[in-house]
Amino acid sequence: MPNIQLPDGTTKDYPAGSSAIDVAREIGERLANSTIAAEVDGNIVDAMRPLEEISDSDPIPLKLLTTRDAAALGVLRHSCAHVMARAVMRLYDGVGLAFGPTTGNGFYYDFDLETPISDEDFPRIEAEMQAIIKEAEPFERFHLSREEAVEFVSELDQELKAEHIETGLADHEDLSFYRQGEFVDLCRGPHIPNAGKIKAFKLISVAGSYWKGDSNNKGLQRLYGTAFFDKKDMKAYLEQVEEAKRRDHRALGKQHGLFAISNEVGSGLCLWLPKGATVRALLEDFIKQELLRRGYEPVYSPHIGRAELYETSGHFPYYRDSQFAPIFGHPAGQLVDYWKQCLVSNEIDERVEGDFLAAAKDIGCPFEDFPKSASNEEKLAYLAKWEKQSERYLLKPMNCPHHVQMYKAQPRSYRDLPVRLAEFGTVYRHEQSGELNGMLRVRGLTQDDAHLFCTPEQVEQEFKDTLDLVKFVLASVGLENYRVQLSIRDPGSDKYVGSEELWNVAEATLRKVLQESGLEFSECEGEAAFYGPKADFMVSDAIGREWQLGTVQLDYNLPERFELEYVGADNQTHRPVMIHRAPFGSMERFVGMLIEHFAAAFPLWLAPEQIRILNLNDEMLPYCEEVQQKFRNAGFRTTIDRQSANVKKKIRDAQLDLIPYMLIIGPKDKEKGGVALRDRIDGDLGFMTVEDALAKLTEERDSRTIRQVLKSDFKGFAGGAEEAENEY
Amino acid sequence: MPNIQLPDGTTKDYPAGSSAIDVAREIGERLANSTIAAEVDGNIVDAMRPLEEISDSDPIPLKLLTTRDAAALGVLRHSCAHVMARAVMRLYDGVGLAFGPTTGNGFYYDFDLETPISDEDFPRIEAEMQAIIKEAEPFERFHLSREEAVEFVSELDQELKAEHIETGLADHEDLSFYRQGEFVDLCRGPHIPNAGKIKAFKLISVAGSYWKGDSNNKGLQRLYGTAFFDKKDMKAYLEQVEEAKRRDHRALGKQHGLFAISNEVGSGLCLWLPKGATVRALLEDFIKQELLRRGYEPVYSPHIGRAELYETSGHFPYYRDSQFAPIFGHPAGQLVDYWKQCLVSNEIDERVEGDFLAAAKDIGCPFEDFPKSASNEEKLAYLAKWEKQSERYLLKPMNCPHHVQMYKAQPRSYRDLPVRLAEFGTVYRHEQSGELNGMLRVRGLTQDDAHLFCTPEQVEQEFKDTLDLVKFVLASVGLENYRVQLSIRDPGSDKYVGSEELWNVAEATLRKVLQESGLEFSECEGEAAFYGPKADFMVSDAIGREWQLGTVQLDYNLPERFELEYVGADNQTHRPVMIHRAPFGSMERFVGMLIEHFAAAFPLWLAPEQIRILNLNDEMLPYCEEVQQKFRNAGFRTTIDRQSANVKKKIRDAQLDLIPYMLIIGPKDKEKGGVALRDRIDGDLGFMTVEDALAKLTEERDSRTIRQVLKSDFKGFAGGAEEAENEY
Repeated sequence: MPNIQLPDGTTKDYPAGSSAIDVAREIGERLANSTIAAEVDGNIVDAMRPLEEISDSDPIPLKLLTTRDAAALGVLRHSCAHVMARAVMRLYDGVGLAFGPTTGNGFYYDFDLETPISDEDFPRIEAEMQAIIKEAEPFERFHLSREEAVEFVSELDQELKAEHIETGLADHEDLSFYRQGEFVDLCRGPHIPNAGKIKAFKLISVAGSYWKGDSNNKGLQRLYGTAFFDKKDMKAYLEQVEEAKRRDHRALGKQHGLFAISNEVGSGLCLWLPKGATVRALLEDFIKQELLRRGYEPVYSPHIGRAELYETSGHFPYYRDSQFAPIFGHPAGQLVDYWKQCLVSNEIDERVEGDFLAAAKDIGCPFEDFPKSASNEEKLAYLAKWEKQSERYLLKPMNCPHHVQMYKAQPRSYRDLPVRLAEFGTVYRHEQSGELNGMLRVRGLTQDDAHLFCTPEQVEQEFKDTLDLVKFVLASVGLENYRVQLSIRDPGSDKYVGSEELWNVAEATLRKVLQESGLEFSECEGEAAFYGPKADFMVSDAIGREWQLGTVQLDYNLPERFELEYVGADNQTHRPVMIHRAPFGSMERFVGMLIEHFAAAFPLWLAPEQIRILNLNDEMLPYCEEVQQKFRNAGFRTTIDRQSANVKKKIRDAQLDLIPYMLIIGPKDKEKGGVALRDRIDGDLGFMTVEDALAKLTEERDSRTIRQVLKSDFKGFAGGAEEAENEY
Repeated sequence: MPNIQLPDGTTKDYPAGSSAIDVAREIGERLANSTIAAEVDGNIVDAMRPLEEISDSDPIPLKLLTTRDAAALGVLRHSCAHVMARAVMRLYDGVGLAFGPTTGNGFYYDFDLETPISDEDFPRIEAEMQAIIKEAEPFERFHLSREEAVEFVSELDQELKAEHIETGLADHEDLSFYRQGEFVDLCRGPHIPNAGKIKAFKLISVAGSYWKGDSNNKGLQRLYGTAFFDKKDMKAYLEQVEEAKRRDHRALGKQHGLFAISNEVGSGLCLWLPKGATVRALLEDFIKQELLRRGYEPVYSPHIGRAELYETSGHFPYYRDSQFAPIFGHPAGQLVDYWKQCLVSNEIDERVEGDFLAAAKDIGCPFEDFPKSASNEEKLAYLAKWEKQSERYLLKPMNCPHHVQMYKAQPRSYRDLPVRLAEFGTVYRHEQSGELNGMLRVRGLTQDDAHLFCTPEQVEQEFKDTLDLVKFVLASVGLENYRVQLSIRDPGSDKYVGSEELWNVAEATLRKVLQESGLEFSECEGEAAFYGPKADFMVSDAIGREWQLGTVQLDYNLPERFELEYVGADNQTHRPVMIHRAPFGSMERFVGMLIEHFAAAFPLWLAPEQIRILNLNDEMLPYCEEVQQKFRNAGFRTTIDRQSANVKKKIRDAQLDLIPYMLIIGPKDKEKGGVALRDRIDGDLGFMTVEDALAKLTEERDSRTIRQVLKSDFKGFAGGAEEAENEY
C-alpha cells in the first residue's frame, strides 16, 4: 500500500497499483480529467503508472501536473509526435523511425522515408492524426531486455532503432516502449494518458536532417509540428509566429537599409549600412558616456594576437573548432611550418621536397640556395631563418587576453584598483554555417566589453555596480521585463578553477547582492563556467520571447594563468579578481533583437531618421531648410522630402519608413512661424511653433522615452531565444 | 670650344676643357670657391670635369651649385663617406668595401670587416678623417672597361665590388672610379672638388647590415655619419636630433601610459592604453561630428573578407607579400586545400595520404569513411564536402572592397549621389619586422577612412570639400604648416587604368581646385597610383620634420572591377567615380606624430587629464570634490591628487605629468568660493572664482586653442618623415 505525500504535506495510503490519476480522481473527477502527468521525486512521469513502480520513497512525494502546468505541455507535444509518426506510418510504406523529441515550441519526428513529404501533404497527415486523436486510445508502457528489444525492433524493420539500442544505449539493460494501438516506439516517455488530450495541433514545416545530426550519416526528413491543450492557445501562438515573421530582423534590415550580409564578404559577417550603423553608434556613444561617468577607461586593441597568447589563456587550441584557423604572418610561414613538421618526423622524400620547393617558388620565396642534398638538421637550420615568418596569429575570439596585457603594461598597486578597461571589441568565431542567423548569430561580433581588475574585497561593490549598469542600459531601450539567472558550481564536479573557499565566498557574495537588488533571480546549479560564477540577464521582448543578453562573469582563471598581480597595503603581491561584463552582449545581437522588439520602429532617440520635413509646394523649400537647420542645430537627424508629390504620398512614405515625426509645412505654417506636427503613432498633432515643436521633441529624445512597443502577454514562446555569445 | 648657357639665358664660348669651376672663376674667385658641383642637362655633376665631356648639348646648359644649394649638401656627404672609408682603411686591416650612399640627413658606408667597430672608436676615426680633410686632396675621376674594372678591384682585394660589377652592373661597359690619394672607389659620383670643402662632420652610429640588404647574404658593419658646409648648421642639426630623441613617441608613450606594444600580442600591434585611447577617441569623436555635418554616413564593416573579394579588387594575390597569409574558416580547410591540390596534380601516394589522414585526425576531422582505395575523382568528391570549410579569408588590407559592397547593397540613382561612407576601419598589413616603429609603422592601423561615390561631374566639388576638410582637421591640432603634393601620370607609361580623356579631365580638375584653394602645391609626374591621381598633404611638425599625412585619391579602377553603377537622369546606367580619403591617414600614425609634435604636452582639448585638483590639506577634500563635480559636469577630465604630500610636490608631479591646469585649493580659496589656478605653461594665475575658471577653461577647450608648441625654424631635417600608409 503506497503512502503518498501531496505538495501540501498531507500523506495518505493508497491501494497497491494506484496511479497519479487515481489520486487525482479521489480529489475530484474534474482534476482527474485534467491530469496529464505527474512529478514524482522530481521526475516527470506517466499519470497512469502505478506509483510504487516509479518510486522507492516512503512516503512517495507526488505533484499532479495538469493542463495548466508548463511541464505537461511538453508531455502532450511528445505524445503528439507519436501520433504524427503513427499517421505517417499509416499513410506511407517503409517508414523508418529515428527520433521524435519536443522543441521549445512544439515537436518534430525524423523519418527515414524515400517518398519526399511536402507542405501539400500536411492536410492528409493532419486528418489522419485527427482520426487517431478521436479514438483516444491510451499510451501503454512496457519493458524489454536489451536482447528482446533489438529482436523486437528488428522484427518491426526499424533498423535505426536497432542501431541506437546497440550503440547509443549500450549501457541500458532494461528498455521502455510505448504502444498506442498498432504503433509501438522505443521511448523513455512519459506520455499523456490517451491521445484524446490533444485538443489542438498543427504541422508546421518539413526539412532535411541527418541521423544523429551528423552530415556524414543517412539523410532523413524532419517533420515539425506543435500542439496545445487549448485551441485558443494555439491560435495565439500561431499569431505570435506570424508576428515574429513580420518582425524578422533580416527582412526589416533589408527593407530599411539597416544592414547587409554579402556573399562576397562572407557568411556571418555583418555590413552595417548607414541607418543600422547610426543606431549602433548611438547606443555606443550612450554607453561610452555612461561608462566614463562610472569610472571606466577606454582602450583599443588589435583584432589579432599571437597564437601563444591564446595558449596561455587556454583558448587555443582548446576551442579550435569554433575559431578561424591560425593566420601566418607570411604565406611562406604556412608552408615552412608543414615542411618542418615533415622533416622532424622524417616523412619526406625527394619528390615531396620538390613539391615544397615548387610551392615556395610559387608564393615568391624561391629558396634558391636550399641545401637539397644536406642533412635534415641542416635543412631545418635553413628553414629556421623563416621562423619569424611562421609566427602564428589568431583572429581574437575574445578581448580578455589583450586587456590582460594592458593591465600588465605597468606595475599595479591596490590604490589603482579597480582598473576598469572598456572597449567595443570585435571578436571572431567560426560558427557553423547552418547556425548563422542574420545579426543574431554571426561570425564577427562586437562586444560592449569591459574587464574589471579588482581586489577580492571589491568584488561585491563592483558586481553591484555592474548589475546597476545593466539595469540602466536595458531601461534606456525600454526593456523592463527581465530576470537574472545566477549560474553556480555543480558541487559534485571538480572541473572548477580556484579554491573551494574562493567559490563559497564568491557565490555567497553574488547571491547576497542579487537578493539586495530586488531583481527576480534564480540559481542554476552546475551552469557556472569553470573559471567562475556568472549572472545572465534573461530579457523578454515585446512579443514575449526571452533573450539572454547582458552578462557579468567572475574569473579566477585568467589572473592565475597570466600571473596578474598587485601590491597590497601590506606591501605583498596579491592576485586580482577579473570581472568580464557586457551589458548589451554584442552590438550585432542586441541591435538584431531591438529591430525585432521595435519591429524597426525605433524610438525617437534611436531612430536613424528622426524627423522628415514635408513641403506642401516648392515655394516652401527655403523655409523648410530654415526649419531643418534649427532642428539640425539641436542635433536632430532630419531630411526634407523634396519629391514633387502631394503631401498624402509623402506622409505615406514617411509612415512606411517609420519616421517618428513629420513636419508638414504649408503657407499658413510658414506665415505663423511654425509647422504642422505629425506623429507616426498618434497622427496629426496640429500647428505648433518651431520652438514648441523643438522643445517637445528634445524632451522626448533626451529622456529616451519609449512611446510605443507592440506588447504581448503571451508566455512560453521561446522561438527567438537563442544562447548569447557570451561565454568567455 | 664649348658654348655654355647660364640660367639667366646668356651664352658664351669657353676654352676646350673648361669646367664649371672655370666658368665660376670667370665670374669671381669667391663664387669659384663656394662652387661644389654643377647641374648640367638636369644631372648633378662634378664641378671639376670638362663640360664637353659631360654634355653633347649646344649650348650646354649649366647651373652652378654652391654651398647654399640643397643638392650640393648631398654631394658633400657622399664625398665625406669616401673620406670616412679612407680613414677606416688606414686604421683597420682587410677592410672590404660595400656601398656608401647618402641618406636624408647624412651618409653611411657598409664595411666587410672582422674587427667590430664601436662608438668608442669614433674619435680615432674622426681624427683620421680630419687629417684627410686638412690635406684637401682633390677627388679625381677615371674610367675603366668592365674587364679592366674587375681586374682592378680584384687586385685591391675588393671582392664585393668585383661581384657587384659582374652581377649588379652586368649591363655597364664603361665604369667610373674616383681616386682621392691612396683611396680609390668604384663610384658614379659626383664629388666635391676637394676634401677641404668638408667644414663639419660627425660619426653618428654603427649598426649591422647585410650585403645588398638581404639577410641571406654576408653580414656587414654600417657606419653612419653626417656632414655640413658649416659648423653652425651641424650644431643646429644635432640639437634637432637630440630634440627628436626627447620627443620620441615610443619613450613618451611608455612614460605617460599612452600605448604599449607587447611581444605576447605581437610586433606592430598597438595596445592603446587609457590615456592614448582617450586622445584617439577625442579625435575620432571630433571628426565624426564634422563628417555628419558634411553629409557623410557612418558604416561598420568586418575586419576580414573572403579572399575572392580581394581577387576581384586586385589586392590579392598581387600584394600578398605585405599581407598576412589567408585564414581558413576551419583548421581542416588548410589541410584539405593542400590535399586537393595534390590529388588534382596526381602528386600523392599511399604514404603521403596516410600523413594527411593522420593530420586530419589530429585536428578533429577523422575522415573515418575516407575512400582510401577509390579513384582520385571520388576522393576529390569526398573532400568537396569540406569545401565550405576551406573558405579563405584575408585580414582586410584596406576598407574599400567592403564599402563597395555596401554601395552595391541597393540600386543607386544619380539623385542618391554622392554617397559618402565613413568608417574608422582597422586594416592589417604585414610590414617587415625591421620596418616597424612604435605607432608610426605598424601592422594594424585604423584609417579615418571614407569612400565617396559620385558622378564624374561631382568630382570637382567633392575634391574641393575634401581638401577643405583636411585643412579643417589639421587646423584643429594646430598644424598650419603644410604643402600639397599632386601626383599625376607619367605620360610615357601605359600602366594606368581609365581612358586618356578621363585622366586629362581629372588632372585638370584637381589642378584647378588646388590653384583656387590657395594651398601651396607641387606636381609630381609619374607618382599617381595606377588607379587615379592623388593629392597628399605634407605637413611640417614643430621641429621642422615633414610628414605625409592626409590623402585624397581618385579611383577609376574599383568601380570598373566591381561593376558599380548608378542610373543617371537619362535613365541609363553609368559608372560612378570613387574617392578615397583619410584626413588623419591612420590613427596610429597621426597620434604617434602628435605625441612627438606636442612632446606629449597635449593642448587642453586633447589632454587625457585636463585638470588636476591639488588640496592643501585633507580638510579641503569635500570642497575639492564639489569643485571637481562642477568641472566634471562641464565635461572636463579631472582628478584630485589625494596624496598626503605638500603642494610643491603635487605641483611638481602635475607638471611632470603635463597636466594643462592645476586647481590649488586652500582654506582661503574655499572661503571665497574659488581656486588658485595654475597653468602648466605660465605658472600661477592667482585666485579665480570657480565660475570664472570654468568659463576660461571652457573657452580654451571649445575653441581647441593650441597655446604652446616648441617650434623650430630648422629646415631640411627629414629624419622623422616616413611614407604614410595610404596607398590604396
